[in-house]
Amino acid sequence: MPQNTQITLATRPQGMPKTTDFGLQKNDVPALTDGQVLIEVEIVSLDPAIRGWMNAGTTYIPGIEIGAVIRAFAAGKVLASRHSNYASGEYVTGLLGAQKYAISDGQGLTKVDVSAGSLSYHLGILGMPGMTAYFGLLEKAKPAAGETVFVSGAAGIVGTTVGQIAKIKGCKVVGTAGSDEKCRFLTEKMGFDLAINYKTQDIDAVLKAQCPGKINVFFDNVGGDQLDIALNNLALGARVVICGAISQYNNTSALQGPKNYMKIVTARGIITGIIVFDYLEHYPRAVADIGGWLDAGLITTQEDFYDGLENFPQTLLKLYNGDNFGKLLLRI
Amino acid sequence: MPQNTQITLATRPQGMPKTTDFGLQKNDVPALTDGQVLIEVEIVSLDPAIRGWMNAGTTYIPGIEIGAVIRAFAAGKVLASRHSNYASGEYVTGLLGAQKYAISDGQGLTKVDVSAGSLSYHLGILGMPGMTAYFGLLEKAKPAAGETVFVSGAAGIVGTTVGQIAKIKGCKVVGTAGSDEKCRFLTEKMGFDLAINYKTQDIDAVLKAQCPGKINVFFDNVGGDQLDIALNNLALGARVVICGAISQYNNTSALQGPKNYMKIVTARGIITGIIVFDYLEHYPRAVADIGGWLDAGLITTQEDFYDGLENFPQTLLKLYNGDNFGKLLLRI
Repeated sequence: MPQNTQITLATRPQGMPKTTDFGLQKNDVPALTDGQVLIEVEIVSLDPAIRGWMNAGTTYIPGIEIGAVIRAFAAGKVLASRHSNYASGEYVTGLLGAQKYAISDGQGLTKVDVSAGSLSYHLGILGMPGMTAYFGLLEKAKPAAGETVFVSGAAGIVGTTVGQIAKIKGCKVVGTAGSDEKCRFLTEKMGFDLAINYKTQDIDAVLKAQCPGKINVFFDNVGGDQLDIALNNLALGARVVICGAISQYNNTSALQGPKNYMKIVTARGIITGIIVFDYLEHYPRAVADIGGWLDAGLITTQEDFYDGLENFPQTLLKLYNGDNFGKLLLRI
Repeated sequence: MPQNTQITLATRPQGMPKTTDFGLQKNDVPALTDGQVLIEVEIVSLDPAIRGWMNAGTTYIPGIEIGAVIRAFAAGKVLASRHSNYASGEYVTGLLGAQKYAISDGQGLTKVDVSAGSLSYHLGILGMPGMTAYFGLLEKAKPAAGETVFVSGAAGIVGTTVGQIAKIKGCKVVGTAGSDEKCRFLTEKMGFDLAINYKTQDIDAVLKAQCPGKINVFFDNVGGDQLDIALNNLALGARVVICGAISQYNNTSALQGPKNYMKIVTARGIITGIIVFDYLEHYPRAVADIGGWLDAGLITTQEDFYDGLENFPQTLLKLYNGDNFGKLLLRI
């Protein structure tokens, strides 16, 4: 069996992770037993959720154990199989981890048709982030044509997918991002009606001026002040879908709660959330829809590739300091 | 026409209201014009919402103007009428204000059948607080038999009504209150399964020990830390109904947002609110249901009477320091 390289959790980060919170270990890949599959990982996905998994305790899934491989979505090719559902040469995605080789019992693996979009797309717009956008928007927020959909952290893979699906559904789409370049990307390439630079613009003032009918749907990837501003601009019957809170993940103090939460009462709205794993059995429908929109040129995606497993820690950090542009991916 | 006595808003309170924030003025009641009704106010209701109405700006209704009569629910008898729907001698409730005589154009007035419960009941369990409890619980939270309903600020009129209706619906009911006496009142007189003294007990620990299945419905009158603790103990599919935030109404700094708001995501729950005025046309159904439960001895209420309009300011303050016990009412 080949030698594996793995990125592990050395210490739990306090606040923003440091490269020293990660370890790199090499070891022999163990022999397969019945029911197992050996996968050669080709691309690792860097997603905001990883920061939460590095904490102690259980949220919707348990935290990563100290010394264990960093949990991450990844895509790869089956090298060997003693599992009846998988054969050598097939491509799969799943929580394969930040490592060169993964052994799986098939649990949570998804076979990937690389003819329907490149392998990397299955970690982005056709993978977990795309599924999050699709089900969070369409099943949780249920936007109607003519409604205004506001997306925080809109230049990420989830945000761009939410915005483009909302446009397909006939909505007015407004998003926030952290640079003028990202804002131009949203309006010029992703079809957003309006993009607001949260670092230089007064989001509340722009929303009041540009969205006088207020916000019908708020899809929140950011939390913190942007959540409070959105709550302050809700239309009657608004749906707030909490997807993430990337502004808060590296807090060393308590998470900042939305001080405007009572606005959901006067808006007669709801605050709810999206856990994409709940929709696992419905992924094929979403993949078919998004795949169709890709083929028809109604939706697009941008990828931000880096190389080398040893660069995993510093690449992950780009997510939290706003450096990345599009879906962040690491080629092994 | 008789002379009126009115309690007015002299200055907007900063934090906890002071008696000097209120004025008392006497003036002649003007002559009725066509379409108006003159009402002699008999009982004024002291409700937490009044504090919000004393602030500047508009929430679901505009704030009270400086110098205007304090907005308050009240009940009284029609003394004279030039309105075709009202006749002398009839009893009505509505936002008549903290004054001895009110003139109304009929807008928002409700005729009261004093044979179906005493007049004061129509300011409490059969009035706005009872309607808030009924529609907030049954229409917004929709509790199922066997579920656990947790109510903060449970010893107030809304809380006791929520808890008793939840018991009628077959739920386990847990509430918080600010004294051992109030806790005994909840379990011994109001049928609660469990009451927690938030001043002396560790609510989180009690919930974890006594409600291992966690909370299916949280009806929040309090906000602040109790909201955070409830969010930390939600069952899958939980419904959080925000009714009030009495712990926060007298804050001079910003309202304390729920730092555990992301728990609504992992609970696959919703946070929503109740604005009772939205259900105005459905009040008769709720009055009939609650009236039936009162007649059948399935539900009860406790009233806390004070006397004299001039005592309005100091009586109102009892709401915010936890001094009152049952529905707080002022007899004119």
